[in-house]
Amino acid sequence: MSFSFQIINTEKNARAGTFETPHGQILTPIFAPVGTQATVKTLTPAQLESTGANLILANTYHLFLRPGADLVSEMGGLHNFMQWEKPILTDSGGFQVFSLADMRKIDEDGVTFRSHIDGSKQRLTPEIAVEIQEKLGADIIMAFDECSSPYDKDYSEKAMQRTHAWLRRCINAKKREDQALFGIIQGGIFPDLRKQSAEFISSIDLPGYAIGGLSVGETKNEMYGTIEIVNEILPENKPRYLMGVGTPEDLIYGVQRGIDIFDCVLATRLARHAAALTNSGRINLMNSKYSRDPNPIEDGCGCYTCQTFSRAYIRHLIMAKETLSGTLISIHNIHMLQVLMKNIRQSILENRFSEFAKQFLSNYFYKPGITADKIIST
Amino acid sequence: MSFSFQIINTEKNARAGTFETPHGQILTPIFAPVGTQATVKTLTPAQLESTGANLILANTYHLFLRPGADLVSEMGGLHNFMQWEKPILTDSGGFQVFSLADMRKIDEDGVTFRSHIDGSKQRLTPEIAVEIQEKLGADIIMAFDECSSPYDKDYSEKAMQRTHAWLRRCINAKKREDQALFGIIQGGIFPDLRKQSAEFISSIDLPGYAIGGLSVGETKNEMYGTIEIVNEILPENKPRYLMGVGTPEDLIYGVQRGIDIFDCVLATRLARHAAALTNSGRINLMNSKYSRDPNPIEDGCGCYTCQTFSRAYIRHLIMAKETLSGTLISIHNIHMLQVLMKNIRQSILENRFSEFAKQFLSNYFYKPGITADKIIST
Repeated sequence: MSFSFQIINTEKNARAGTFETPHGQILTPIFAPVGTQATVKTLTPAQLESTGANLILANTYHLFLRPGADLVSEMGGLHNFMQWEKPILTDSGGFQVFSLADMRKIDEDGVTFRSHIDGSKQRLTPEIAVEIQEKLGADIIMAFDECSSPYDKDYSEKAMQRTHAWLRRCINAKKREDQALFGIIQGGIFPDLRKQSAEFISSIDLPGYAIGGLSVGETKNEMYGTIEIVNEILPENKPRYLMGVGTPEDLIYGVQRGIDIFDCVLATRLARHAAALTNSGRINLMNSKYSRDPNPIEDGCGCYTCQTFSRAYIRHLIMAKETLSGTLISIHNIHMLQVLMKNIRQSILENRFSEFAKQFLSNYFYKPGITADKIIST
Repeated sequence: MSFSFQIINTEKNARAGTFETPHGQILTPIFAPVGTQATVKTLTPAQLESTGANLILANTYHLFLRPGADLVSEMGGLHNFMQWEKPILTDSGGFQVFSLADMRKIDEDGVTFRSHIDGSKQRLTPEIAVEIQEKLGADIIMAFDECSSPYDKDYSEKAMQRTHAWLRRCINAKKREDQALFGIIQGGIFPDLRKQSAEFISSIDLPGYAIGGLSVGETKNEMYGTIEIVNEILPENKPRYLMGVGTPEDLIYGVQRGIDIFDCVLATRLARHAAALTNSGRINLMNSKYSRDPNPIEDGCGCYTCQTFSRAYIRHLIMAKETLSGTLISIHNIHMLQVLMKNIRQSILENRFSEFAKQFLSNYFYKPGITADKIIST
């Protein structure tokens, strides 16, 4: 199985391409919604498909603990279990485990931790993380990495070194030929570490590379700077995945800096908290000004929610604590990001991405008195 | 607007008919899922429609308090607000108000109560209940009635008398011609009161009649007996609605006794508590025996859930507290009751309802060693 990546056009650092997987072609740049527990929360696969979503992400940590990788494997793997026949990406479990703080203990071989569900003692190593991901059966699987505290240089360096050593072990442990293993670059906010990590990881021939350890508390400028440092080093002919990033503006800024793949829980988490993404910015539908608003979340939007319901109805569902509000706003928010990515891709193909980005950001951040130039100076 | 009711065929007391409404024809007997707050919980209208549902019920009490009848009216009425273009029935708010126990005070003119949402003082009278229902704009609206404690004869008689007086006032208050007002029979479990109430209510020419005050704590035999007493008196040429009843067996037993319309929250409430209705009885999908079960909830079922997902996946969603489990089981449970009603209707049309009922109940209640005759003796 070759996971061939083709770049069709570039505009400065932005790239429009295709990535072949056993479950179909991914058009890049792409945004992947997150289905942590083998479900993008509150949505059926049919609803998810209606948003235009293609690649989705599932979390190894969560599925390892519940229902367990063996069970998913017995049920025919993740695609069959959750009935998503398009591409799936699983993370390695590293990020979640390292988020457990007091409940985990790291050694050179791996990490021992307590389950957040029942407190049971569990262990992940590079070999186990690969084994689990092979049982889950996603199209893209991730190397087991260690995400450090971004401002702690000493720890960031140690975590990076372990991440490098663990990548070798992941490669050795990997048996399935129909999964693409991506390596992950770490190094906190430190340019020298990020450079070192990018050089090491990209020295290994892999079907794709990811930037980890961002969107974990650093500033936006530190994030953008890190992407620039890393992407300067990563090979051009492989997809680049920015993990855990997914605000509309960061999708633009990421593509601008050469990113091809994104994932983020934001769109669906916001939806469950009444917030909708529109081309004119984020709005909170709990606001009483929407109580008698007969308009859709966004005029002209083609999603099921906007084609069907008023803001007034969605606000009513929110106030009445009906979970359908989360479903409806999730459909809209994911659709909004899918359309954004589609427009970004098309604009790259037509060599007008810079213009599109400027236009999008000036609408998205529009406030009376602020000029577009000020908005897009980031 | 004529709400014409046509009986196409009868088999003993069971009837198959049609009822015309401004939002289309209802094929009776029919089961109406409940959309308390202008949404059948966890389902989009598209999902609800896929179950075969036609008539649905919404609760006046809840919509009166939130978002308010004026708002729904401004948004084009309930059909437009919730985007359900098929028939809708609203109750009068009486049942919910009388369930408030310590929080309400009844007088001859109406009832004063405290909102369960914010404790605010509210009032419903027959005139207000009709006015609210006219603003909501359902196809079938209900007279404001008082549901008594079923075993308290003195109270049941007083509540019945008020219900009768309030029906007159509802009729006088009603202005819209495109809504069918149904009268409600009360009288607790007392045959003489039920007879008296049925005689009074049916002495008024209305497009339909309902039996209220059942499924509120009385025994099954008391319920079935009451239906028999009332239906003996109600005119044959008008639809009969048994309020709040909806287990599979009670749909059968109700039809057997001449009921045409049912509603109940059971199917969707069970779904949110992991319980599925199948032709072989109720099953709880939280049971660990389903953890690796690759089969659908019910073999051969045509609903989206059964056509798509395994019991193992649905159980995983339940254990992982994903609300999608409620959505998927709701789709199945409502579909199951819709198919049951369709089969009941077809069997009446073909004069084989008794046979169908016997077959269905012996499957539904099947236990080794219990004969079908014992099961259907009720």
